[in-house]
Amino acid sequence: MCDAAIKAINEGFHGYTMNTGMPELREAIVEKLKRDNGLDFAPSQIVCSNGAKQSLGFSMLALIDPGDEVIIPAPYWVSYPQMVKLAEGTSVTIRTAFENDYKMTAEPARGGDHRQNQGVDSLFLPQIPPGTPYTADELRALSGMSPSTDPDVALISDEIYEYITFEGSHDGILQVAPELKDRTLVINGFSKGFAMTGWRLGYMAGPQKVVDAVAKIQSQETSAPSAISQKAGEAAYRGSLDEVTSMRDQFKKRRDYMVDALSAIDGVKCFKPAGAFYVFPDISAHLGKTVKATGEKIETSTDLCMFLIEEVGLAAVPGDAFGEPNGIRLSYASAMEDLKEGIKRLEKGLTELS
Amino acid sequence: MCDAAIKAINEGFHGYTMNTGMPELREAIVEKLKRDNGLDFAPSQIVCSNGAKQSLGFSMLALIDPGDEVIIPAPYWVSYPQMVKLAEGTSVTIRTAFENDYKMTAEPARGGDHRQNQGVDSLFLPQIPPGTPYTADELRALSGMSPSTDPDVALISDEIYEYITFEGSHDGILQVAPELKDRTLVINGFSKGFAMTGWRLGYMAGPQKVVDAVAKIQSQETSAPSAISQKAGEAAYRGSLDEVTSMRDQFKKRRDYMVDALSAIDGVKCFKPAGAFYVFPDISAHLGKTVKATGEKIETSTDLCMFLIEEVGLAAVPGDAFGEPNGIRLSYASAMEDLKEGIKRLEKGLTELS
Repeated sequence: MCDAAIKAINEGFHGYTMNTGMPELREAIVEKLKRDNGLDFAPSQIVCSNGAKQSLGFSMLALIDPGDEVIIPAPYWVSYPQMVKLAEGTSVTIRTAFENDYKMTAEPARGGDHRQNQGVDSLFLPQIPPGTPYTADELRALSGMSPSTDPDVALISDEIYEYITFEGSHDGILQVAPELKDRTLVINGFSKGFAMTGWRLGYMAGPQKVVDAVAKIQSQETSAPSAISQKAGEAAYRGSLDEVTSMRDQFKKRRDYMVDALSAIDGVKCFKPAGAFYVFPDISAHLGKTVKATGEKIETSTDLCMFLIEEVGLAAVPGDAFGEPNGIRLSYASAMEDLKEGIKRLEKGLTELS
Repeated sequence: MCDAAIKAINEGFHGYTMNTGMPELREAIVEKLKRDNGLDFAPSQIVCSNGAKQSLGFSMLALIDPGDEVIIPAPYWVSYPQMVKLAEGTSVTIRTAFENDYKMTAEPARGGDHRQNQGVDSLFLPQIPPGTPYTADELRALSGMSPSTDPDVALISDEIYEYITFEGSHDGILQVAPELKDRTLVINGFSKGFAMTGWRLGYMAGPQKVVDAVAKIQSQETSAPSAISQKAGEAAYRGSLDEVTSMRDQFKKRRDYMVDALSAIDGVKCFKPAGAFYVFPDISAHLGKTVKATGEKIETSTDLCMFLIEEVGLAAVPGDAFGEPNGIRLSYASAMEDLKEGIKRLEKGLTELS
C-alpha cells in the first residue's frame, strides 16, 4: 500500500479523481466484494469516501427524514446516534444482553420498544457488535426485522471489522438473506483490516438510488477521498491478505490473554469476543461501591472510568457512551506488555473500592 | 510537499490524527494566517478538513437552522446553494452586474431582495468572485451588510484563491473590518494555490464556539483529513512561495491571452479578472439565436454549452449553473495550446448560429 502511494505521488497522481472514487479503485472493490463476500455489484454502485464513518454518516443524511426512526442495537458505536441526530432522525436503542454476547435478537426489536417497526426507516447492523459476529441463523432471524411490507426499511450493514474475525467463516446479512439486497447498504473501509486508519478511506455499496443520493451529497460536501489513499486502497484489495491474516492472529493471542486475565479479576465478567479488537467486560458488580481512601461514590461506568484514569492511569471507555451502563470498553490494539500493565492497573484500581 | 508526504509514509505516520488536524499543521496554519493575512488565531480555532468544500459545507450544518436565510452573491460557486439546502436554510441569491465585474455591492443586498437582512443568518463572501477580488473600500462597504444589531450574522469568507491574485495586494474582509472577527469564518485550503487538489486538504479559522460546533460535526461524520496530506500541507505552509508565484505568473499570461481572444469574438464581452483561473464572458448576444444547420433554438447558456460540446467539442460551464444566465465559465487552468484550440472552437461554434 505504501509503495503504491509513493508511486502515485512520484507520478503526479494527486489531482482530483471522480467524486465517487477513481474507476480502478471501484473496480477493485467490486472484485473484492465478489471474491470475499460473493456479492455482485457494479462499479456505479460504489461510492468511495473519507472513511467508513463518512459513508455511514452521509447514508443517514440521504435516507432519513425528520422523525424517521432508526434502530440501533446497544452497545453501539458512539457515532451512530449522533449521525441519526444530525439527519434529524430518532434513534431507537435496543439494549442487548451480556449473556448473548451483546448480540441483538429479532424478538425484542419487534416488541414494544419501537412500535413493531412502524415508522422505522433504517436499522444499523454492525456485523461484529462488541465482540462476536452474528451467525448465519441469527442474521436470518434478524432479516425478518425488515418486513417485506415496508420496502423502504434500510439495513446499514457495517462490515468494517470483516477481516478481524477469529473463528469460523464471516457472514454479512446479504450472504444469508440475499433478497434484502435492494434495501441494504454494505459499509466497509480500509482502516481496520489493513491498519490504514490515517489514510481515511472507506466505501459503501448498495442500491443505485441510495448510492446516487449519497454521491450527490458527497459531491457538494466533501468530494472524493485523497487520490493517494485511493491508490493505496486499490493495492490493498489487489494484493495478498497474508499480512492481514498474520495481524489477525496477533489480535487473537491478545484477546485470549485479555479475556483470561479479566475473568480472573473479582467482579469482572467477560465473554470471549470472536472479532474486532475490543473486550467489553461487565463491571456492574463494582457500581455502587465507594473509593476507600476518599469515600467518593462510584455510581456509573463513567464514574469508574474517571476513577481509573485519575488514580491508576488506565484509559477505558465507559459503557455509558455506548448505551450499555454495565460495561466498559477496553481496546487490545496495543502491545502485549502494555496490555499486561493495563490489567495490573485495573486490578489495583478495583481493589481500592469497597 | 511530495517529499514530506513520502517521508510520512516511510516513517509510518499514517495513523489517526486529532479530529481537527495534527497540532503541527494547525500551528503552521496559525503562522501562515499571521504572516500572510495579519490575523491572530489560536491553534484551537482551526479545524482542518478534507478540503475547503467540507469546511464550507459543515459550517452551514453548524450555523443554519431550518429556514435561516443565507445571502449568496451570483455568479456563485455551484455548491453554495446546495450546502445551504442540505442544512435546510434558504438561499437568498443576489445577482451582481457584469459591469461591476460581478462583484456584490452593499446596496442591492440591503434592498427588497432579502428583507433588509431580517432573518439573514449568514453571508457567503468569496474573496474572489468570478474574477476580481474586492478592494478594501468595497469590502468595507460590504461589512455593513452584517448589522451590528444582529451579532449572529456570520460571514463566510471563502479565500481559496488567495494566492492566485494578479494585481495589487490581497485583502480579506478581516483585514479591512477586524471588528467582524467574532462573526467571520475564514475558509481556505491547499487545492488552488499549491495545486494540491487530489490531496483533499482545507481548513477553517473562526470564533471558538462555531469552530467547536464544526469540529463536533466533523468528528461524527468524517474525522480528520489524511495524515499524509496533512504532512504535505504543513510543508506547503512552511516552505517558500516561489513555486506558487511562478504558477500565478503563468496563469496571468493565460488570462491575458484569454481575455484578448474572447473580446475579439463577435458578441462576446469579457472583463479582465484579477484572480483565480476562470473567465466568465457575457454571451447574451448569442442567446435567442438558432443553429443554422438544424434550426435548433439556443435559448439559454445551458443550450449554448450543450451545443458547443456536441458540435465543436468545447467544454464550458453554463452561467445558469452559477445563477448568472448571461455568462459561461471557461477555465484557463490548461496549457496555452489547448486554450488556443478552445478559442478557435468557440469562434467556430458561434459562427454556426444566426
